[in-house]
Amino acid sequence: MSSGLGTRDSGLGKESSPESRVPSPESRLVVADVRARAPAWTLTPEAEARLRAAVPEGWALHLVEAETISDGDGNPAPSPEVVDAIADAEVYFGFGMSAPLLAAAQQLRWVQSAAAGVKSLLGLGLPEQGILLTNAAGIHAAPMADLVLGGVIHFLRGFDVAVAQQREAQWVREPWVNPAAGAVDVRPREVADCRVLIFGAGGIGQAVARRFAALGACCVGVRRRPELGAPAGFERVVGDEALDDELRRADVVVLSAPATASTERVLDGRRLGLLQPGAIVVNVARGTLVDETALAEALAAGRLRGAVLDVYTQEPLPAASPLWRLPNVLATPHVSAVSPARFWDRMLALFLENWGRYRRGERLLNLVDASAGY
Amino acid sequence: MSSGLGTRDSGLGKESSPESRVPSPESRLVVADVRARAPAWTLTPEAEARLRAAVPEGWALHLVEAETISDGDGNPAPSPEVVDAIADAEVYFGFGMSAPLLAAAQQLRWVQSAAAGVKSLLGLGLPEQGILLTNAAGIHAAPMADLVLGGVIHFLRGFDVAVAQQREAQWVREPWVNPAAGAVDVRPREVADCRVLIFGAGGIGQAVARRFAALGACCVGVRRRPELGAPAGFERVVGDEALDDELRRADVVVLSAPATASTERVLDGRRLGLLQPGAIVVNVARGTLVDETALAEALAAGRLRGAVLDVYTQEPLPAASPLWRLPNVLATPHVSAVSPARFWDRMLALFLENWGRYRRGERLLNLVDASAGY
Repeated sequence: MSSGLGTRDSGLGKESSPESRVPSPESRLVVADVRARAPAWTLTPEAEARLRAAVPEGWALHLVEAETISDGDGNPAPSPEVVDAIADAEVYFGFGMSAPLLAAAQQLRWVQSAAAGVKSLLGLGLPEQGILLTNAAGIHAAPMADLVLGGVIHFLRGFDVAVAQQREAQWVREPWVNPAAGAVDVRPREVADCRVLIFGAGGIGQAVARRFAALGACCVGVRRRPELGAPAGFERVVGDEALDDELRRADVVVLSAPATASTERVLDGRRLGLLQPGAIVVNVARGTLVDETALAEALAAGRLRGAVLDVYTQEPLPAASPLWRLPNVLATPHVSAVSPARFWDRMLALFLENWGRYRRGERLLNLVDASAGY
Repeated sequence: MSSGLGTRDSGLGKESSPESRVPSPESRLVVADVRARAPAWTLTPEAEARLRAAVPEGWALHLVEAETISDGDGNPAPSPEVVDAIADAEVYFGFGMSAPLLAAAQQLRWVQSAAAGVKSLLGLGLPEQGILLTNAAGIHAAPMADLVLGGVIHFLRGFDVAVAQQREAQWVREPWVNPAAGAVDVRPREVADCRVLIFGAGGIGQAVARRFAALGACCVGVRRRPELGAPAGFERVVGDEALDDELRRADVVVLSAPATASTERVLDGRRLGLLQPGAIVVNVARGTLVDETALAEALAAGRLRGAVLDVYTQEPLPAASPLWRLPNVLATPHVSAVSPARFWDRMLALFLENWGRYRRGERLLNLVDASAGY
């Protein structure tokens, strides 16, 4: 699968073939630490070939053979191989970054994370050390937006009720056609009739808006800087100060903003109380954006139609959490971004574009703004 | 809720107000038998007002007060009120039609059904008696297509596995990221990467195609007369003779064709065997289009990723059916068309348009072709 092993295996970046490259002490080094334990995230053979072929003259690539983990914002226990390799690296390309790895780096100037979340990386002091940080925001948008759409339809069409009936081999139409007669009211509605409030108009929020808008729904975005305007798919965007008003009119609320100090518990008990009866809440951002206790109470009381959750305050979600047991929760184990057939195409396209920009001294894509926290 | 009761309550159709109309023996009579027991289907007050206001001069409307049923293709036990009223009716507007009702009709010329399915009406011999039959095909397309899309995403994103884990408060990511390690392989895929084969390119199939195409998927239609061309959303349409070839390449197969002699068991065991491993089957048409036994076997063997079923050979689906118990089946109890907020707007628009055409002697919309069987 790999055409070279060990430290600085790829050597000089002649454009001809990877095998012809010879390491040189003068080479600028990229360490790629992307052999994830999870098959869905690990570098594919095709992406590896493309990465090796893209190493330019004057650069060397160390493709770390040791396994790493793709979960969270960085591997807290990096392999001895990567700790050794990063000493001379100018660029680190991996799933996040961790304190022990950073401590071993001597010449690091740029970290490209293959993860979107960077919260725990912000405490590492990269800017203070003059190290650029770019993330994979946007890379995961498509599968996440698919999940959001499917999760919303799950409740709009009563799949939660259907699944519960299926378990008992029960054929009961009342929840759909005669809710007064049944315990559950599906409230069947069409996607096109929904007003979808999307908190966070970045890559994920935009992918969500494009999908819902294509199906005829009205999408309103909440973004930190509404003056930047409404991206495609959004009928309009508003600032945080309009959030309460918009919540009162939303049929669906999607959280797709980064976890920062200003988004912490943005959907708290008071704001959940502003939602219409029958509203649907979706969180594909981070668990910290929601008051989980208040959400569970609103769901248990039937004040919301349902919640689609992929992220939680604590992960794995503790067995004692009431969210597991609520019939109007659709809970996935932080897997919304998984898309094995597509991830490496997108990730490598971003890394190679950024690598080119880095060499030319241009502004990188997906540069993390430490002051904004994402 | 109703502004008049009894036989021929609405009287002459002066355009002024419903109350001012006086019955006249010369009036041509429409009998509307649309007070469904199920609240989701019954005539709404808004639609009733609109219908009453639309009665033209020379016509009378008898809005039957007795309850009827909206299930199936017609009420086998019509109310005494409607049996009495239909004697003089030129037009009958109801949920299907039944033999006892037809036997009571003396002057019937046109039946507008508020249901899409007409199979059991075909045996009544309406054409032989010179009675036109129009159905509600297309009216239900939007909610049904929403269900198809949501059902497909249910399996693409592994909601079936998530729901099963949720029941046990289990947090296991392996089915998404490391299928070899787990019993289930979610095969996470994106909607945009799917080739969707849609059997039946009528109103429902077109609504399905428009949705999937808007999300970037490639839709291929199978229609009886491919020479009619590819409606919006379809990349192309093919005839029945190309079905086998297209099945071999499909990621998703959607059945959205009427139940006729030529569509009976169109998806039989042999054709199910042509599908790729991991394909998803959706049936929102009629149960007779699929060999349910062969489908259950393919699902149990894990040869298919999943099936989304709203219709069954026998309804209610018998408790003994293996389909209830298969974890890779999403089964809804024939409710895909339920859309209380939208149905009457659409239905009345169709009926009023057709009523105008009928009076002007023009060709009606949704005319059932008895020879084709739909």
